Amino acid sequence: MSSAEPRTPGPDHLWSVDEHLADVLATVRPLEPIELQLLDAQGCVLVEDVMVPLSLPPFDNSSMDGYAVRVADVSGASEEFPADLEVVGDVAAGAADPVRVGPGQAARIMTGAPLPPGAETVVPVEWTDGGLGEGPVSGMRARSLAPEGATGHVSVYRPAEARAHVRAKGGDVKAGDRALSAGTVLGPPQIALLAAIGRGTVRVRPRPRVVVLSTGSELVQPDEQLGGGQIYDSNSFALTAAARDAGAIGYRVGAVADDADTLRSTIEDQLVRADLMVTTGGVSVGAYDVVKEALSHVGDEDEPGAGVEFRKLAMQPGKPQGFGTVGPDHIPLLALPGNPVSSYVSFELFVRPAIRTLMGLQDVHRPTVRARLNADKALSSPRGRRQFLRGAHGDGEVTPVGGSGSHLIAALAQADALIVVPEDVETVEPGAEVEVILLG
Amino acid sequence: MSSAEPRTPGPDHLWSVDEHLADVLATVRPLEPIELQLLDAQGCVLVEDVMVPLSLPPFDNSSMDGYAVRVADVSGASEEFPADLEVVGDVAAGAADPVRVGPGQAARIMTGAPLPPGAETVVPVEWTDGGLGEGPVSGMRARSLAPEGATGHVSVYRPAEARAHVRAKGGDVKAGDRALSAGTVLGPPQIALLAAIGRGTVRVRPRPRVVVLSTGSELVQPDEQLGGGQIYDSNSFALTAAARDAGAIGYRVGAVADDADTLRSTIEDQLVRADLMVTTGGVSVGAYDVVKEALSHVGDEDEPGAGVEFRKLAMQPGKPQGFGTVGPDHIPLLALPGNPVSSYVSFELFVRPAIRTLMGLQDVHRPTVRARLNADKALSSPRGRRQFLRGAHGDGEVTPVGGSGSHLIAALAQADALIVVPEDVETVEPGAEVEVILLG
Repeated sequence: MSSAEPRTPGPDHLWSVDEHLADVLATVRPLEPIELQLLDAQGCVLVEDVMVPLSLPPFDNSSMDGYAVRVADVSGASEEFPADLEVVGDVAAGAADPVRVGPGQAARIMTGAPLPPGAETVVPVEWTDGGLGEGPVSGMRARSLAPEGATGHVSVYRPAEARAHVRAKGGDVKAGDRALSAGTVLGPPQIALLAAIGRGTVRVRPRPRVVVLSTGSELVQPDEQLGGGQIYDSNSFALTAAARDAGAIGYRVGAVADDADTLRSTIEDQLVRADLMVTTGGVSVGAYDVVKEALSHVGDEDEPGAGVEFRKLAMQPGKPQGFGTVGPDHIPLLALPGNPVSSYVSFELFVRPAIRTLMGLQDVHRPTVRARLNADKALSSPRGRRQFLRGAHGDGEVTPVGGSGSHLIAALAQADALIVVPEDVETVEPGAEVEVILLG
Repeated sequence: MSSAEPRTPGPDHLWSVDEHLADVLATVRPLEPIELQLLDAQGCVLVEDVMVPLSLPPFDNSSMDGYAVRVADVSGASEEFPADLEVVGDVAAGAADPVRVGPGQAARIMTGAPLPPGAETVVPVEWTDGGLGEGPVSGMRARSLAPEGATGHVSVYRPAEARAHVRAKGGDVKAGDRALSAGTVLGPPQIALLAAIGRGTVRVRPRPRVVVLSTGSELVQPDEQLGGGQIYDSNSFALTAAARDAGAIGYRVGAVADDADTLRSTIEDQLVRADLMVTTGGVSVGAYDVVKEALSHVGDEDEPGAGVEFRKLAMQPGKPQGFGTVGPDHIPLLALPGNPVSSYVSFELFVRPAIRTLMGLQDVHRPTVRARLNADKALSSPRGRRQFLRGAHGDGEVTPVGGSGSHLIAALAQADALIVVPEDVETVEPGAEVEVILLG
């Protein structure tokens, strides 16, 4: 990352990829936290240290189905000379007030049930006759089928040490321990722990709502008929899917025609549901590039520091880019170029990190690896621009897929990586080591 | 994977992990495909080869903002001796019937706009005076601000070869090509390609609907008050989140008390929205293990081959497991043990692959790697059982987290891997290489 001073370079400045990214990430701030139900918080970042309010387990309990007994009563037990104990009742899981176990007595106990008063250890049912008087058993008969199992006598064939098969209160976590630290991403095991300590809701940064709209009078929706000079809108689909993939709630707005007033009013309409806006197209040097025209004046003409700035980046694809904030709430907006590959690469490089910054994640970038270039001929790259080529990665190698043309969408669908050719490199020979961004 | 004959072993058979998994995967079949809107199909598996109905691009078009001209008219152009051409109009993107370019003429053309009849090449606007008569420009003035830019004259300062800056019709994909093969998982770039060729809907296997319910009279919902002998329900939260993480639509049913009739009617109620059911608890040898009691008779008493079978697995944790089908539609059901760690590990080993099989994915398992055991003392594991310990993985090493107790949910929340200790290994020394399942 460079130490770029955001927004200071003049209008003719050629921005490096790192400068533009630094500007985006310096502007985008993590969303304000909200309290969410556990399952709604999946994938979100915790903003509080969560302390354990009660010990887990909350009480001594059995780790086996068996009999709760006193140690001395079974100390000499064997198959030949079993200990014969009086069964005083059942202790089921959830029992609030279990029976007391006296000398010579046993309580039938279930996994997870509290160790009853008087009992010092648990013998598994497989070490007993299950109260049936017919030698060792492999399990208990269901209570509903054989209620008499909770009474009578049981033969125990093996001794047990004190607190055998007993999970001690607080053996997992103790009250006052820190269960999870602020900054933790909540996956299934973290949700399990939060539920286990009684937390039904949790304070997290919510998923960002990302509004995606494509621009271009040539764009037609899929399944409709193409007229002359028209193509299908693919960017709004691709980037909405990519936003969801990054962890956001993606809202796709259909393609907007190249008319500044229409675009401006569409964006103003959408602001209410946007934490981030993404547009594609209309950012270059053409006479119909209305995104530029429209976006410096969306709802906040009088706000200092607001507005969208258009710039040229030293990269290929993706040279023309816009970035700034729109509307009275200064919603960040990234205006990406309209070529499908340019917009997708730009999304990966700039929008995905912005989304993950909004989420409060520490690690906002895709993983990168070094890989050997597997190609028939050398790659060429323009001097002074960082080039991102589509590639297929595996086994320490990366193979270019398709050409460098920013309209080659079919090749993009075969790629799982971006090959990075630095600004000062014009040729990469086959077999050379290159940096590769893994697209996951 | 073993070549286990599903369902043939007798009731006392100790199932290996591989045998149980083979039984599950032999029973679960990919869901019937349905036609979904593109964005609803994200993450789903395509079941058809998708062919390209029209070439991309559908017509020759400009890759730059500039002027469409004839090659001969600019062949000798330089800054000193520019070619002076008559501007006959604009060709915007989406133009259905562009102006014709004759000798000595130029049409102002935008990126993506069709190459107009008569034109043979495109010169970028930066190679011209943009029609202003004041030397090279960096871009066009917006059409809305300067409509006169579409008329008058333009000076061109550099020659251009035939079809320079022109993207040829069919240069990306050609009509009749295969865009995507059956079996492709639809991510953002694949969705981009489908939209680009005009496909608004696509035939995929839908996300499975997975109903998760926990059982146990001791279970209380988070945020409620714990009574004596009670604990919070965490399994239904953890496994619903894990089901979503695996790609399913997860439905969480609250905890069900240990009563066979209640459990049976709850399951029958839920069948209507289930492609797969998961229960936790009640599968061991206790007198209150009602899942066993209830599940062999859910709605399909008279159906051959239906019903849930309960078995012991040679693994730790997770020894008691149930698997089979329920209801008239033979919905697969996995009955997992109730200890939080046991149920989570069982989910990873058996339910996640089942979900991914329902989705039609080829690769249903978590990735595994070999790693060096980083531990102070040797790990011990019971002979004849495959042990799964929680671990933290990184830099080629794995460090055990917490102990082997199946109730240790706090340690689970710190783990990102499972350490696998094979059946025939009882001790693993520090520094030894072990198999590790990466939890993603």
